[in-house]
Amino acid sequence: MKAVGLITEYNPFHNGHAYHAQQARQVTNADVVVTVMSGNYVQRGEPAIFNKWRRTELALAGGVDLVYELPFAFAVQPAHIFAEGALTILYDLGVREIVFGAEHAELDFMALAKVAHKQLVDHADFKQDYRQTYATQFNDVLETIIGFRLENPNDLLGFAYANAAIALGWADEMVLTPIQRVKAGYHDASLPGGHIASATALRSASEDVSAYVSPQAADWLSEGPETYAWSDKWFDLLKYKVLTTPVEQLELIYQLNDGLAYRLKRLIETNPMVTWDDFQATFKSKRYTQARLQRTLLYTLLQITTEEMKQARPYLRLLGSNGKGRQYVKQQRESITLPTLNRVGKDDLTDLLQLDFRAGQLYQYCAQQIAYQSFSQDVRRQPIFYEETES
Amino acid sequence: MKAVGLITEYNPFHNGHAYHAQQARQVTNADVVVTVMSGNYVQRGEPAIFNKWRRTELALAGGVDLVYELPFAFAVQPAHIFAEGALTILYDLGVREIVFGAEHAELDFMALAKVAHKQLVDHADFKQDYRQTYATQFNDVLETIIGFRLENPNDLLGFAYANAAIALGWADEMVLTPIQRVKAGYHDASLPGGHIASATALRSASEDVSAYVSPQAADWLSEGPETYAWSDKWFDLLKYKVLTTPVEQLELIYQLNDGLAYRLKRLIETNPMVTWDDFQATFKSKRYTQARLQRTLLYTLLQITTEEMKQARPYLRLLGSNGKGRQYVKQQRESITLPTLNRVGKDDLTDLLQLDFRAGQLYQYCAQQIAYQSFSQDVRRQPIFYEETES
Repeated sequence: MKAVGLITEYNPFHNGHAYHAQQARQVTNADVVVTVMSGNYVQRGEPAIFNKWRRTELALAGGVDLVYELPFAFAVQPAHIFAEGALTILYDLGVREIVFGAEHAELDFMALAKVAHKQLVDHADFKQDYRQTYATQFNDVLETIIGFRLENPNDLLGFAYANAAIALGWADEMVLTPIQRVKAGYHDASLPGGHIASATALRSASEDVSAYVSPQAADWLSEGPETYAWSDKWFDLLKYKVLTTPVEQLELIYQLNDGLAYRLKRLIETNPMVTWDDFQATFKSKRYTQARLQRTLLYTLLQITTEEMKQARPYLRLLGSNGKGRQYVKQQRESITLPTLNRVGKDDLTDLLQLDFRAGQLYQYCAQQIAYQSFSQDVRRQPIFYEETES
Repeated sequence: MKAVGLITEYNPFHNGHAYHAQQARQVTNADVVVTVMSGNYVQRGEPAIFNKWRRTELALAGGVDLVYELPFAFAVQPAHIFAEGALTILYDLGVREIVFGAEHAELDFMALAKVAHKQLVDHADFKQDYRQTYATQFNDVLETIIGFRLENPNDLLGFAYANAAIALGWADEMVLTPIQRVKAGYHDASLPGGHIASATALRSASEDVSAYVSPQAADWLSEGPETYAWSDKWFDLLKYKVLTTPVEQLELIYQLNDGLAYRLKRLIETNPMVTWDDFQATFKSKRYTQARLQRTLLYTLLQITTEEMKQARPYLRLLGSNGKGRQYVKQQRESITLPTLNRVGKDDLTDLLQLDFRAGQLYQYCAQQIAYQSFSQDVRRQPIFYEETES
C-alpha cells in the first residue's frame, strides 16, 4: 500500500481540505491519505476551534484515512520546527510523498531550498541562534539568488517542509508535491461564492456556512467555538498567572527570554485592569510577530519551560482511522521507530505526553459547553474508528 | 509615652473592637494604642472583607492610634507563628503590655504557659517537628497538669501569645492582660441584640448592621465584600493553577507536603468540574483543619514556596496613625531594630515585601469593584494619617 502525507491544522475541516485530500490521493496514486494534524492548539498560539477528537471525526468523514496528532512541542512553534515535527512523524510512518497546497504550485520548493540551503551554509554570517529567523534568513538568501521572496503563507510552509527534509537528511527520499490552492486565500476573512472558504472566514462567519463544510461541521460551527481563543477571558488567567509568579520563574518559560518576562510582568503589574486589545498593542514589538507573542503567552499560561521543550520528543499518537488506514498501520508496524501511544497509560501523562496532557487539560477546562468540560482529551482515550458506509 | 499593644484582624472593625481598644487604654493607663493587624488575608487563609487600607481607616476612626501590618508570612499561619510575628513587631515598637479579649479572662495565661512549657520541654517525647502541633501538644500537657483544656478560640490565642513570649525569651518583660469578651462569641453567625456582634455575623449579615459598626463601615458592608473569599470563582483560578503546574513544582509550595500536592492534582485532574463545596468535602481530612487546608490552597494560589516562607523576615509597615501615634513612633525611633517600610521602594517589592506584594496583587486583581481594582496595595502607598476632630 502506498501512502501520501498531509500536514494540517483542520481548524476546522472544510470542503477545501476534502478537495486537498482527494487531489493528494489522485496525483500520487496513493492507497491511503495520512494526515498529521495539530492537536488542541494551532501554530499561531491559539486553541483550535474544536478539540482534536472532533476535528479528527470531521477529517475521517471528509476522506482522510489516518489522523495522527502533531504534538504541542512541534505544533505550537515557528514554521521550521512545526515542519520538522510533521515530517519526522510522516517519515516514520513510511510516507515518502507529501502533498500541500501552495499559492505558487509551479515552484519546485525542494530545488529552491537546496540552493538556498547551500548558500546559507556557505555563508560566513551563519548564526548559532539561526532557529529564530531561519525562514527569514532563507528567504533573504532566496531573494539574492532567484530574485524573489516567498510571501504567501502556504508557499512559505512548503518551503519550510523542503528545508526540514534537508535538515533531517531526507531531501532525496521525500517528494514534495505542491498543488494549486483554489480560490480562497489563507487569511481571507469573508465568505466567497462557491464551495470553498478559508478556515479563517469559517471561524468568524455569522451566516450559514453549510455550503463550505459538512453538515456535522456546520452544526458544530453554529454552536460556536469549543473554547475561547485569546480574549479577555483567557487573558484573565494569564494576568493571574503573571501577577502571582516571581519573575525568576517566568524567566524559565520557553521563549520568555531577552527581558520579555520582566516586561510582561511589569506591564501587567502596573495596569492589572488592561484589556487584551490594549495589552497586545503595548506588548507587541517589531522584533516579534503576533504569532510568536501569542505562542509565548500560551507557553506562559501552560508554564512550559525551556527545559521541558528541549526534552520533548516526537511520538505517534493515532487520533483516528478507517479500515484502510488501520490496514496500512498494520503493514508499517515493523518499520516504525517512534514510540506509539494508542492507549494512554498513567506514566505517559507525566513523561512523553506531559505537555500535550497539560495543554489538553487547559483546553478542556476552558471549554464553554459543559459537555466538553467533562470530555477528557487524553486519559483513557482511544483512537476513533471510522466505519465507511458503502458508496 | 506608654503604649499598649493589640493583635487584630479587624475583619471588619466593629463596636466590639472599639470597646477593646478603649478598655486596653484604660486598664493599662496607656497613652497610645498600637495594633498589629493582618494585611489583606486573615489567619484562616481567606482574603479579608476589605483591603488593609480601608480596615486601617476604620480602626483609626474607632480609637486606635497606630496600625501596623502583620506580614503575610506571619498572618496566614498557625496560631503560634501568627503570635510570634505579632509579638516581634510589638516588642520592637517598645510595647511591653498586650491586652486581648478572652472567654476566660480570669486565667493567668502566662503562668499556665510557663508550667506547660516546662513540662513539655522536660518531656521525653518532645518532637523536632513540634511546630505543626505546638498548641495541641501544649493543650495536652495543660490538661494533665491543670485538668482542663483551652477550647475557646480567644483563650487559645491568648495562650499562643504567652507561648510566643516564652519562645522569644520575653516572658518576664511582656505583660499579657486578658479582658473579658462581651456577649457575642467569636464564631456566632447571627446578629445579637445590643451594639456588639461578631465579625463573622457582620460579614454574612444581610440586614442592616449600623447598630454594630461605624457609619462608614456600615456603608462599606452594604456594598458587599471587596473580594470574594473561597468560592467557585477563586477556586477556578486554583484549578487553572493546579492543572497547569507539574506536580514537582506544586511540591515546592509551603505545606503542600506529605503527598498533598499529588492528591490535590489528582483530585482536580480527574474532575475539573468539581465545585468548591464538593472539593472541600473530598480534600478535607482528619489530619488537617479547614483553616490549614485553606491556607495551603492560598499558598498554592500565590505560588508561595517553602523556601520563600523560610526566608521571610518581619518588618515594620505602618499602615496608619493619628497625631499621637506619630509622636509615639518618633519617640521610639532610636530603639527600633526591624526594617521599616513607610514608603515602598522598587527593591522592597522583590525583597522584604515580596510575599505581601504578590498577595496584594492577587487581592487587588480579584476585587469586585473597579474602584478597588485600580487601588494599588503597596506601590507608592504611604501610611494613612488620621486627623482627629476635637471632641
